[in-house]
Amino acid sequence: MADPRAVSGGKTDARQHHDTQVRGFASDNYAGAHPEVLAALALANGGHQVAYGEDEYTAHLQRVIRSHFGQRAEAFPVFNGTGANVVALQSVTDRWGAVIAAESAHINVDECGAPERVGGLKLLTVPTEDGKLTPELIDREAYGWDDEHRAMPQVVSITQSTELGTLYTPDEVRAICEHAHERGMVVHLDGSRLANAAASLDVPMRAFTNAVGVDLLSLGGTKNGAVFGEAVVVLNPDAVRGMKHLRKLSMQLASKMRFVSVQLEALLAKDLWLRNARHANTMAQRLAAGVREVAGVEILYPVQANAVFARLPHAVSERLQKRYRFYFWDEAAGVVRWMCAFDTTEEDVDGFLAALREEIGAI
Amino acid sequence: MADPRAVSGGKTDARQHHDTQVRGFASDNYAGAHPEVLAALALANGGHQVAYGEDEYTAHLQRVIRSHFGQRAEAFPVFNGTGANVVALQSVTDRWGAVIAAESAHINVDECGAPERVGGLKLLTVPTEDGKLTPELIDREAYGWDDEHRAMPQVVSITQSTELGTLYTPDEVRAICEHAHERGMVVHLDGSRLANAAASLDVPMRAFTNAVGVDLLSLGGTKNGAVFGEAVVVLNPDAVRGMKHLRKLSMQLASKMRFVSVQLEALLAKDLWLRNARHANTMAQRLAAGVREVAGVEILYPVQANAVFARLPHAVSERLQKRYRFYFWDEAAGVVRWMCAFDTTEEDVDGFLAALREEIGAI
Amino acid sequence: MADPRAVSGGKTDARQHHDTQVRGFASDNYAGAHPEVLAALALANGGHQVAYGEDEYTAHLQRVIRSHFGQRAEAFPVFNGTGANVVALQSVTDRWGAVIAAESAHINVDECGAPERVGGLKLLTVPTEDGKLTPELIDREAYGWDDEHRAMPQVVSITQSTELGTLYTPDEVRAICEHAHERGMVVHLDGSRLANAAASLDVPMRAFTNAVGVDLLSLGGTKNGAVFGEAVVVLNPDAVRGMKHLRKLSMQLASKMRFVSVQLEALLAKDLWLRNARHANTMAQRLAAGVREVAGVEILYPVQANAVFARLPHAVSERLQKRYRFYFWDEAAGVVRWMCAFDTTEEDVDGFLAALREEIGAI
Amino acid sequence: MADPRAVSGGKTDARQHHDTQVRGFASDNYAGAHPEVLAALALANGGHQVAYGEDEYTAHLQRVIRSHFGQRAEAFPVFNGTGANVVALQSVTDRWGAVIAAESAHINVDECGAPERVGGLKLLTVPTEDGKLTPELIDREAYGWDDEHRAMPQVVSITQSTELGTLYTPDEVRAICEHAHERGMVVHLDGSRLANAAASLDVPMRAFTNAVGVDLLSLGGTKNGAVFGEAVVVLNPDAVRGMKHLRKLSMQLASKMRFVSVQLEALLAKDLWLRNARHANTMAQRLAAGVREVAGVEILYPVQANAVFARLPHAVSERLQKRYRFYFWDEAAGVVRWMCAFDTTEEDVDGFLAALREEIGAI
Repeated sequence: MADPRAVSGGKTDARQHHDTQVRGFASDNYAGAHPEVLAALALANGGHQVAYGEDEYTAHLQRVIRSHFGQRAEAFPVFNGTGANVVALQSVTDRWGAVIAAESAHINVDECGAPERVGGLKLLTVPTEDGKLTPELIDREAYGWDDEHRAMPQVVSITQSTELGTLYTPDEVRAICEHAHERGMVVHLDGSRLANAAASLDVPMRAFTNAVGVDLLSLGGTKNGAVFGEAVVVLNPDAVRGMKHLRKLSMQLASKMRFVSVQLEALLAKDLWLRNARHANTMAQRLAAGVREVAGVEILYPVQANAVFARLPHAVSERLQKRYRFYFWDEAAGVVRWMCAFDTTEEDVDGFLAALREEIGAI
Repeated sequence: MADPRAVSGGKTDARQHHDTQVRGFASDNYAGAHPEVLAALALANGGHQVAYGEDEYTAHLQRVIRSHFGQRAEAFPVFNGTGANVVALQSVTDRWGAVIAAESAHINVDECGAPERVGGLKLLTVPTEDGKLTPELIDREAYGWDDEHRAMPQVVSITQSTELGTLYTPDEVRAICEHAHERGMVVHLDGSRLANAAASLDVPMRAFTNAVGVDLLSLGGTKNGAVFGEAVVVLNPDAVRGMKHLRKLSMQLASKMRFVSVQLEALLAKDLWLRNARHANTMAQRLAAGVREVAGVEILYPVQANAVFARLPHAVSERLQKRYRFYFWDEAAGVVRWMCAFDTTEEDVDGFLAALREEIGAI
Repeated sequence: MADPRAVSGGKTDARQHHDTQVRGFASDNYAGAHPEVLAALALANGGHQVAYGEDEYTAHLQRVIRSHFGQRAEAFPVFNGTGANVVALQSVTDRWGAVIAAESAHINVDECGAPERVGGLKLLTVPTEDGKLTPELIDREAYGWDDEHRAMPQVVSITQSTELGTLYTPDEVRAICEHAHERGMVVHLDGSRLANAAASLDVPMRAFTNAVGVDLLSLGGTKNGAVFGEAVVVLNPDAVRGMKHLRKLSMQLASKMRFVSVQLEALLAKDLWLRNARHANTMAQRLAAGVREVAGVEILYPVQANAVFARLPHAVSERLQKRYRFYFWDEAAGVVRWMCAFDTTEEDVDGFLAALREEIGAI
Repeated sequence: MADPRAVSGGKTDARQHHDTQVRGFASDNYAGAHPEVLAALALANGGHQVAYGEDEYTAHLQRVIRSHFGQRAEAFPVFNGTGANVVALQSVTDRWGAVIAAESAHINVDECGAPERVGGLKLLTVPTEDGKLTPELIDREAYGWDDEHRAMPQVVSITQSTELGTLYTPDEVRAICEHAHERGMVVHLDGSRLANAAASLDVPMRAFTNAVGVDLLSLGGTKNGAVFGEAVVVLNPDAVRGMKHLRKLSMQLASKMRFVSVQLEALLAKDLWLRNARHANTMAQRLAAGVREVAGVEILYPVQANAVFARLPHAVSERLQKRYRFYFWDEAAGVVRWMCAFDTTEEDVDGFLAALREEIGAI
């Protein structure tokens, strides 16, 4: 009985309230933090550091960010993805500005109206096939800049990887940026899963951001293995205004910022970001491959990052949910989303596939 | 020379960018986190936990909160103090509501207008002697509920301990609550330094909150030794509405909430909150006692928590700031603020006093 | 040549800067005011009347409103339609509320984001065939009330007559109200052209509002012949909160309110509202009948109020616009909108049809 | 009995609901409109004019405005004073901006928080003796532009004439403008009673606005004799951004704008604005002169425009209010405000003074 988990259900301390061996496919933010990130928090601890960003760790983070995104890049660490997006979008819009985005974009469907309520932003949304905008789709809302009755389109916001687990190629992003810039708009990229995109495309993160014209992005840390923490990364400083004040008034300024910055540094300074993302993507591929062999389950979008969307009988999903937590994406249509995380194991995937087969066979 | 800090300036790891032995008196949020809090993060790590608050650590936090604030209390963990205050105030106001507060209140002077901009709140502020409201001071703004030209006073917000390091007695809070309630207003308490207040008053936190009528509070964790994390604690659920949605739309909902909750649990479950606060207060007393012996330096307010405000010659402050980081509070008046933290040592205080004596003698 | 207009081009006074005989088909708000409305302004003039709504004309307006909409109805005069809609919608939503509306709704496409920016509202929009919502279409956005990530659907807002000149039958409105109420939502009706709808349906205004469950509406005066002025009409006082304060903070409170109220009274007390609306509708029917006889022009939606939408060759529209002012509705698709007003004459319509025939023949 | 008013109590038409011979001293917006303004509405009526400001009357208004305020000036007609102020202030602030104003300013105390709620503005207010800011008073809040914790002071807003009926001299305004400009701030002037100020100072309106550095102003029409209508007048176009969109999104864009513009033209094209203002001021002087002879009543501020503030026994005020409507300014202190309007007569003043003498003698 050498492993205490054998008797404690994965708990190793009386103050530990959960089973550390249980994982599901509900979301990559159900995962905890990578141990190297936790270790980094300890490194940054002790002594006094100037609050609100004038600390050594935030200074180091800037160097790391520039190594990824070039010498003009600057990171503004924030607490969460909603905050990153809303702070970023405010910095590139006037009070009368609007944001063109995919109808499925997180800023449109999953932030309880924070862009509108906190940022006073109007979203001009476009339905898409696969979560991806194109110049043609953008043009459905890119007009009327002189018309005061219309919220002025000032930004195009794209998501990489998208909410549907799909990816823009660098050329696709470039085309969007050129199209937007020609019309006087800037391009924001919601990169809460930026690492997964780079890992899957097998290119540096810059290849589909600053190298092709993206002006600023929301860089995800949480889903990549942090305790918490994201950053707005300004790539084109000419396009943005007021970042520091906007971060503060949007309630996204951490007092002990060293602890946000050191996590991002832990992920990004070497290859932890890539290892984590690559692993999650690989698990999604393994999952998709297994699912494709199960009759009665249809995979809906190209599996390009760490998400698998599938259509299957509602009753099967419900039975399966009793064994593994995951979400319906479109309950009426029988569509579910399965997410892999940096800590998903091959055993997790195989166990889940076995359960899927069992439940689909039991119907 | 066994101590590596002797040669590395307090750094023990190549990735550690700061000197862990340097501390100042600028702010209690210049401090890092208490080691027990870091250890708690590790305990909560591993495995999957439902995101956004449906995890085991948040559930346990509720029990801890109820042990402090009674069976009706409920905690809503958030990222930071600005967030706690603005979420809390929105939950007890209509769109036309106003908040009566001391002119010196953090919500008025230190949040870049977040209450107004994010919450759409009007602040009705009153000058005070010592940062403390009274029923009489409240009455300067408590009128005109039926007058649509006037933002409707719906909340009184007090701070404990105040921005000036002073304290309300439980009876003083009770008088404010009775006064407010009689006029149909609720009472919010900004408790970013709630622990310091309880430690100094030597009473449980409930003694000056729910026991005397406070309806909801912002409970500080960051300055008490957390990496980050605060909570809105609802004491009177009949008075508040929409907390969950307000937290989300105010961009204060942590996805991996277990990591916020476990920190607050680490502080509050036993006596870490009290040890940390008591220590900081004791250091402030030691500092104040030493300062009082220095001719030419005047202490300005009762030293009741972990802050010491002093007036001294501007040139002395400037010289001293080259040795220890701290802030002017009112530069024109020569007033400075010295804060003690949970990790301030007796040696820190004594060293600072020696430096103060040197610099004042050098003028 | 007794008519001074013969020489002055319709101007009868040196201070008159425009030709009073020129009319087009651009919008019903290109028209001026009905002479009876101007006369009413003079009646309300003179002497002092309490500002901000405590005047005799606003009191009388309430009686008139109740005669139309029942004893529970109350009117809150405001300046314009945007104001009426945004004040109304705020009164039936919490800070976390959302409004389900047709994608083509004026609140979505024509108010520069005022609902989002002033009201902090999230709009959940649905594409429609003809500008009309149905229970089925509503259901595309009516879900997730407990999900804090989703703006909470609290209102369904419909427009009567719609932006596309179509009408809901009373039964269609009733079905929407029942559907909304069963789901805990209220129903707002944007009635900037309410009079046109009633005239066309040949029923009292109540027949498709309070009689079938509408909770509150925006009642148009401007397009019906007023100088300016609309009103939020609360039909179900149990559903709304804070109207007086919301009107003020939304900057829609007229100090000399008697002048708004007396205009609405002039329209509504007898049958001026109906005469004006009926006339505009009749002119639209005459226009549509004429257009249907012109080969190469296609009428797009049922002509049920005072708007005619047509598709015709772009070049024809451009030539015609040099003779009569009107707008493209969807320039890429060659769709234009022609509006008739209370002062459109048969000669105006016939002249326009002749011009249309000429221009289409000239291509 | 030739005068129908003798039998009808001032009513001349069955649809006239009020007594046109009753006037009080409550507010200059209790008055109606000047007959020449009503006549102008009729002149602008008839025919179609492009909506939303592209009409002939708005074009003419621009010429009139330039004749008063110079060739760079441009007017943006709006509905009311709250709207003018909030639109104007948004055009000269970033999302993180703050406005320095007197504590007594209308934008602070009388607009139900509209600047904060609609404009997202933080007000930094300063107590004053007489409603007037000075460079010294401004400096109490003019600091911290680089501090993201502080809302950034970007505008100084002054009121002329002030809420206390006092006036800035042109030199005083010039000193404020120079002070503000040196610190990178712009100057806004709330001129809801601009005409009264010019009349009292006996200088053109430009003398204390664009001639001395004011960047933009809110120009009052309503209290000067209009039915409704004000304008933001941009004096320094380099300082403002987005006026057209801001007016629309702030719900202050009139569709039939010709009717706002023609009223302002009627007031400003010749000397109606001056006659109306001068008369109101003269009546206030007559009232003040009479009051000064009444023992037991103290006039509180210099009577420089059309307002008289007085302190008298509370019981006298209450008795007097039964005969003439007016407001307490500070009920606890026994302070009342008496306003004269463009239509106040010498008989009104004398009758009021007689009543005051009677009531004070009756105590």
